[in-house]
Amino acid sequence: MTTAFPAPGSHEEIEEGLVLTPRFDGDGLLAAIAVDDQTGEVVMVAWMNAEALARTIATGEGWYWSRSRKELWHKGATSGHVQTVTDLRIDCDQDAVVLRVRTAGTGANCHTGRKSCFYRRVPLGQAEGTPARLEPTGDQPLFDPKAVYGG
Amino acid sequence: MTTAFPAPGSHEEIEEGLVLTPRFDGDGLLAAIAVDDQTGEVVMVAWMNAEALARTIATGEGWYWSRSRKELWHKGATSGHVQTVTDLRIDCDQDAVVLRVRTAGTGANCHTGRKSCFYRRVPLGQAEGTPARLEPTGDQPLFDPKAVYGG
Repeated sequence: MTTAFPAPGSHEEIEEGLVLTPRFDGDGLLAAIAVDDQTGEVVMVAWMNAEALARTIATGEGWYWSRSRKELWHKGATSGHVQTVTDLRIDCDQDAVVLRVRTAGTGANCHTGRKSCFYRRVPLGQAEGTPARLEPTGDQPLFDPKAVYGG
Repeated sequence: MTTAFPAPGSHEEIEEGLVLTPRFDGDGLLAAIAVDDQTGEVVMVAWMNAEALARTIATGEGWYWSRSRKELWHKGATSGHVQTVTDLRIDCDQDAVVLRVRTAGTGANCHTGRKSCFYRRVPLGQAEGTPARLEPTGDQPLFDPKAVYGG
């Protein structure tokens, strides 16, 4: 297997070391947070397995693991919204990455057609135990998902 | 249980509805991405169970579930780095939230003492199958973790 990463070492090595030793979860995944290269806004939260992480590092494009389709996913292969990665960082315990992306095509990162998946706000101060309402942020679809994905 | 959320409905309701129906994973958790209120920079990736999410919404402060300690965690209760949430958003499939935070004390969000947990870069273009090196971003500790957490 060409995508094997070195096994994580001590706490000190994981947190302060300068070798990538990712800590995948029980499903072999880590969280991958995509932020817009221009604005720094979080646009997508997805997952990477070892193969997706290795390909992202090697190619500088966003590769993920689709939990719903259970397959390696080159973002944009279907929709044209390929993500060029301009910066990649790993966190203290090496189980999450943040990637800055410049997205091709319409610039949409969400499968609903919007630039960001985070197009609804949860107003604060809503009491526990009552259904919480959401508010749209105004982020509108940039393309028609049905035309791209069918359905 | 006062923190129960309504069960998720159809795809359409989950993606376009204006009721919060979070989709927790098999461990009862969703990903919570904290970004700095001033800069928009991602500073921490953590996890919330239903209780943590409900308390965050109700109180406007950052509550999480610690996967390592297996307990509800009011961020800053020990270190003083309480996070005041200024904005909370949920994503398309309602299994991840982004919260903007203003962090008290030194402003550190990482248990290593740094402002951000993402203090190491993964240089792009490193070939698959070779150990990938990391580079420090220059983010320095703002306090001495040993003085706060012991160890």
